Amino acid sequence: MTERWQLDPDRALPADPTTRGLARTIYRHAAACPLVSMHGHVDVELFADDTPFGDPAELLITPDHYLVRMLVSQGYRHTELGVDYRGTAHPQGATGAEAGAVDVERDPRAIWRRFCENWHLFRGTPTRYWLEHELVEIFELPAPPSAADADDLYDHLIATLQRDDFRPLALLDRMNVQILATTDSALSDLSAHAALAHRLGPDRIVPTFRPDSLVHVGHRAWPAEIARLADVSDIDTGDYRGFLAALRERRRAFIAAGARATDHGHLTADTTPLPAAEAERIYRAALRGDVRPADADAFAAHMLFQMAQMSAEDGLVMQLHPGVLRNHNSEIYRLHGPDQGFDVPVRVEFTRSLQPLLERFGLSRDFRCILFTTDETVYSRELAPLAGAYPSIRLGAPWWFLDSPEQMRRFRESAVETAGFYNTSGFVDDTRAFASIPARHDLARRIDAGYLAKLVAEGRLAMDEALDTMIDLAHRLALAAYARRLD
Amino acid sequence: MTERWQLDPDRALPADPTTRGLARTIYRHAAACPLVSMHGHVDVELFADDTPFGDPAELLITPDHYLVRMLVSQGYRHTELGVDYRGTAHPQGATGAEAGAVDVERDPRAIWRRFCENWHLFRGTPTRYWLEHELVEIFELPAPPSAADADDLYDHLIATLQRDDFRPLALLDRMNVQILATTDSALSDLSAHAALAHRLGPDRIVPTFRPDSLVHVGHRAWPAEIARLADVSDIDTGDYRGFLAALRERRRAFIAAGARATDHGHLTADTTPLPAAEAERIYRAALRGDVRPADADAFAAHMLFQMAQMSAEDGLVMQLHPGVLRNHNSEIYRLHGPDQGFDVPVRVEFTRSLQPLLERFGLSRDFRCILFTTDETVYSRELAPLAGAYPSIRLGAPWWFLDSPEQMRRFRESAVETAGFYNTSGFVDDTRAFASIPARHDLARRIDAGYLAKLVAEGRLAMDEALDTMIDLAHRLALAAYARRLD
Amino acid sequence: MTERWQLDPDRALPADPTTRGLARTIYRHAAACPLVSMHGHVDVELFADDTPFGDPAELLITPDHYLVRMLVSQGYRHTELGVDYRGTAHPQGATGAEAGAVDVERDPRAIWRRFCENWHLFRGTPTRYWLEHELVEIFELPAPPSAADADDLYDHLIATLQRDDFRPLALLDRMNVQILATTDSALSDLSAHAALAHRLGPDRIVPTFRPDSLVHVGHRAWPAEIARLADVSDIDTGDYRGFLAALRERRRAFIAAGARATDHGHLTADTTPLPAAEAERIYRAALRGDVRPADADAFAAHMLFQMAQMSAEDGLVMQLHPGVLRNHNSEIYRLHGPDQGFDVPVRVEFTRSLQPLLERFGLSRDFRCILFTTDETVYSRELAPLAGAYPSIRLGAPWWFLDSPEQMRRFRESAVETAGFYNTSGFVDDTRAFASIPARHDLARRIDAGYLAKLVAEGRLAMDEALDTMIDLAHRLALAAYARRLD
Repeated sequence: MTERWQLDPDRALPADPTTRGLARTIYRHAAACPLVSMHGHVDVELFADDTPFGDPAELLITPDHYLVRMLVSQGYRHTELGVDYRGTAHPQGATGAEAGAVDVERDPRAIWRRFCENWHLFRGTPTRYWLEHELVEIFELPAPPSAADADDLYDHLIATLQRDDFRPLALLDRMNVQILATTDSALSDLSAHAALAHRLGPDRIVPTFRPDSLVHVGHRAWPAEIARLADVSDIDTGDYRGFLAALRERRRAFIAAGARATDHGHLTADTTPLPAAEAERIYRAALRGDVRPADADAFAAHMLFQMAQMSAEDGLVMQLHPGVLRNHNSEIYRLHGPDQGFDVPVRVEFTRSLQPLLERFGLSRDFRCILFTTDETVYSRELAPLAGAYPSIRLGAPWWFLDSPEQMRRFRESAVETAGFYNTSGFVDDTRAFASIPARHDLARRIDAGYLAKLVAEGRLAMDEALDTMIDLAHRLALAAYARRLD
Repeated sequence: MTERWQLDPDRALPADPTTRGLARTIYRHAAACPLVSMHGHVDVELFADDTPFGDPAELLITPDHYLVRMLVSQGYRHTELGVDYRGTAHPQGATGAEAGAVDVERDPRAIWRRFCENWHLFRGTPTRYWLEHELVEIFELPAPPSAADADDLYDHLIATLQRDDFRPLALLDRMNVQILATTDSALSDLSAHAALAHRLGPDRIVPTFRPDSLVHVGHRAWPAEIARLADVSDIDTGDYRGFLAALRERRRAFIAAGARATDHGHLTADTTPLPAAEAERIYRAALRGDVRPADADAFAAHMLFQMAQMSAEDGLVMQLHPGVLRNHNSEIYRLHGPDQGFDVPVRVEFTRSLQPLLERFGLSRDFRCILFTTDETVYSRELAPLAGAYPSIRLGAPWWFLDSPEQMRRFRESAVETAGFYNTSGFVDDTRAFASIPARHDLARRIDAGYLAKLVAEGRLAMDEALDTMIDLAHRLALAAYARRLD
Repeated sequence: MTERWQLDPDRALPADPTTRGLARTIYRHAAACPLVSMHGHVDVELFADDTPFGDPAELLITPDHYLVRMLVSQGYRHTELGVDYRGTAHPQGATGAEAGAVDVERDPRAIWRRFCENWHLFRGTPTRYWLEHELVEIFELPAPPSAADADDLYDHLIATLQRDDFRPLALLDRMNVQILATTDSALSDLSAHAALAHRLGPDRIVPTFRPDSLVHVGHRAWPAEIARLADVSDIDTGDYRGFLAALRERRRAFIAAGARATDHGHLTADTTPLPAAEAERIYRAALRGDVRPADADAFAAHMLFQMAQMSAEDGLVMQLHPGVLRNHNSEIYRLHGPDQGFDVPVRVEFTRSLQPLLERFGLSRDFRCILFTTDETVYSRELAPLAGAYPSIRLGAPWWFLDSPEQMRRFRESAVETAGFYNTSGFVDDTRAFASIPARHDLARRIDAGYLAKLVAEGRLAMDEALDTMIDLAHRLALAAYARRLD
């Protein structure tokens, strides 16, 4: 620890000296742009309470499924990383590797040590890149994680987290976040957002309407969710018509709370509408707990069409991200619940799947849809051609499995030539890890600067155009893409 | 406008100085090679009439679906760009964004201005790259498009287009085009080609036999096309046997007019032949207007097999390009017709689909098939392995959505290692925009030079081999791939 | 031939000078690492007999399907390259290009000349790269293949191959091969391995258990294979229970002979188990020669699950490589048999296909599965997410169509960010061409060094980490991935 740990100021810029020089200029041109974070998963309660973060494990390790899954992939159990059993799990009945693993590690220092000892596993991953940025730039750690330094680093972090200027809202300012959109259950009472709007003004922390739990009628919890929908909307959801009315009411409440967008995670991008009578039939059957998988799939597709209809009416921007098979391993799900690193992408199809939706709303100036993928093969084949033709479509930033240096480069190399820069959404960080937001935006800016620099170096773009586009990519495009239509 | 607008002489070459130096040498080695344009969509009437081009909008904007769709994707209507309604459209009945958009812009200067004001939308696209080349190298514009210069540039273009040395045939010479293959309806009387052969000699502008409208029996216009086939061939097409005979006669006429190849655009690459009786049954049903979609698909696949059979007989090179869902939006199609930027690729499969065809003709020395794709995932997985084994197969150049710098690089990086350079077709420009032909060939040469330079820089190829291969890629391979078999 | 033929010492390292310097340092750091060759197809008899290699055609051309298919793709016949007819072929009945091609070239010098005259066809391919390495580093040829030098080179090779220090076991030492795993029929009596273990010690040349011929019940040879299984295992295979018992016995014999792993080539990755009674029914039907294709597919999937079960019991590492449609052309297969360059990849799916297997064994510490693909689209979408979550999964090196410079780079760029380096298998050479083993490992090390150098140059990894990881990739990871569980 003789020298202070420092980051390479040119990190993630292209290595070739010519291109790097150009990239450095372009990157710095956008350095002062505030962060526009229009799609993420930070819990709004974090800000509503504004209580200090707990310990390093709770802040950085246990809730980060990127990090947990990597350690699990090398033989650790979730419990060894502090991941608790969910309420309904009966670990005694567990089979396989998890059987009998009933003790959850409660010592955050032990969890932190485990992480530090395995720092090498993250070489070459974006997790490593983000963590370095956070640990150096935000928490000012004196050295990288290692077995030798684990305890010192832990003590440093504990001391830092107790400072007032490390509370969530203070960090939000320090991070230069202009606007942060959370993702919220469609059933949220939005009281936290109301309190924050009162404290911070109307356009700083805004909700996003996520109705997934209400449209997947095959999920075990669906009937309970529908009952809650009736409660919170004060509309009878006993029939399909009431269900739609309650959804419209909830969207109005989200708009009143500042929402710009909705968010839809489906297994496929199918948007085929059903005749109303058929939708009504499936809805009723589902309420009776008697729904076939094919009907559940058809209903989910139908509801995407309905959500587009409502977006064309109320102007909420529709975000769609299909193609991830959730909870691939049922034992992990049973013991620890969702979002534990065992979601795995599948092939996804957009061209035919979106045709019903685009036939009806694709040319409308009142409709906006942002498309995300975890299957990079669709960028050049489907998403860029769609975004490069339909005025309602914007191509979302690479996210989740694809929000890494190589992938973000490939996104630009695959999508821009057909879609142009101006049919892309600007960066979205899509993170649950609040402290990683600046790292993620900074990385995206560096990659975009590198791509623009390559265009300049290859005589494909003038420098003044690259500088102008850089500001668009870092700031203006996200604000524009997520502007509620009709506003 | 103090300095004249100039292109970077090293544009589209790799940025790394070592590789760039090599690439420059390799590129220049092929500089004098004439252009071999064996697959494109320039209208033969353009040359037959040899009348001056009209205005800049008519030449550069309205007929170019790459350009139109980009402006449409940002909110312009086709009509605002001068795209007319098709004869049968009733715009009064239009829905959505196009509803009521009955006025087609008739002022070419206004269209040109609209384009110039949106020049930034094309940053990073091949359209931008091609246009720059055309506007500087052919039309000698003094400055790039911009709102400020739009009118001056328009006047400059108008003056240029009136000059005799800017007529189509003069440009063909100036562009150093050795041979140009047009794409022609199988029903064409070929009179324009006959006139041009008389004027220019037999191997300068040649037709390509495209029978798509005759083999997709589910299309509304099919019966009329079959009637025209009978007329033009003077063979009764009232039964399937006559249909095949008429096709053979038309191929003979195309060969007599200098054709080297046929061209087939299908949704899939299926080549499964039907029993003759089944083909006859579907043909008869289709003539009655009573064809099921599955039968139409089966017939289209069957006809690909028949076309291969005829190619093995008469030596015409067979070009196949599956995988694009045409006319994705029915409103655009209804109002403005096909080729308006709303064709969107879908996943495509070759390995199993081509097996019937390759079982029968794949090893034949009398058969040649060139395969194109808009789905880049098949290069390494399917197309390169097929082209790297079957002597009849050549892998076509990246085209349409894939004829851009990044994509052409990825094509080489994905296909050459398995197929080799010598199972690829050489460049095809596939353009409707006549004036963009040199730009497209030049770009392809630069990208190929860059790839060869990388191989040299990495010690994977000797410089003399790279120079030799460069001439192959720029000139010799296309001539060889499109040499009619049996000649 | 004035200067001796030499290889570029920096070949296959990145061209950019900054990155190249780093890559050179990283590559050299692993230069002394012995070769760990855990998956290949060199015939064990080669070592058991240790007789000198024959002529250059027999050593380098005729048995190498990479090389043969490239020459065939340009119009040569297999027979012109010395590929013999298989026992059962009746070439008189052949159709198409092979018809009447009854004379097999018997003159190795003529075959060698044919190859030398076509050396240009291999430009840009890994075959060219490997051959250069072999011809220079092992056989010390004075000049590259060419028509002019063909005879001199042939004489040089003939003289070299007669030397005692060019016998297989001598080469094995010279090549610095620490351990070589062959791939062996599950029916092998393993006597050659026993003799070699006696001569060389137990961990130098080890077998790999490949039961494909026993689990694909639809293949014509299956009943005969099952009869041989009964013979070699001395267990009655007349029913399904006996079949499983015989497989277990054979696995024990392989383990006793030093086997670390099993190897499974299937058309799909489906691992859905059947109820025992259903498996029994299909097995019986197959013994009667009465099996439907769908049942054969289901049984193959079931057997992958059974093989995983047995691996979890006995600790053999399971290697799975789906996605290649074998013997795409039936005429080539009929005349010359399998492995003649006419195997073509198809799209492959892992996420859903492996779910049954991973549900049951994925979290087990007693199970290890290494996944290979010839469809590069699954790296980022499916394989890296699976390997980055399940502790039992390792992601195999790029192989077969993907074991080339560009592909190996793309593998790292696609897989590492999600899976990390430490869930990958280390390099496997997968070769039939014994003399190419060092070339293949050397190339992989250069590409990996280049990727690590890029990470260092871009500030994404420290140099000491890169050096440490380089040793892992070149040596330690393969040993660890292929360590039999339970050892």
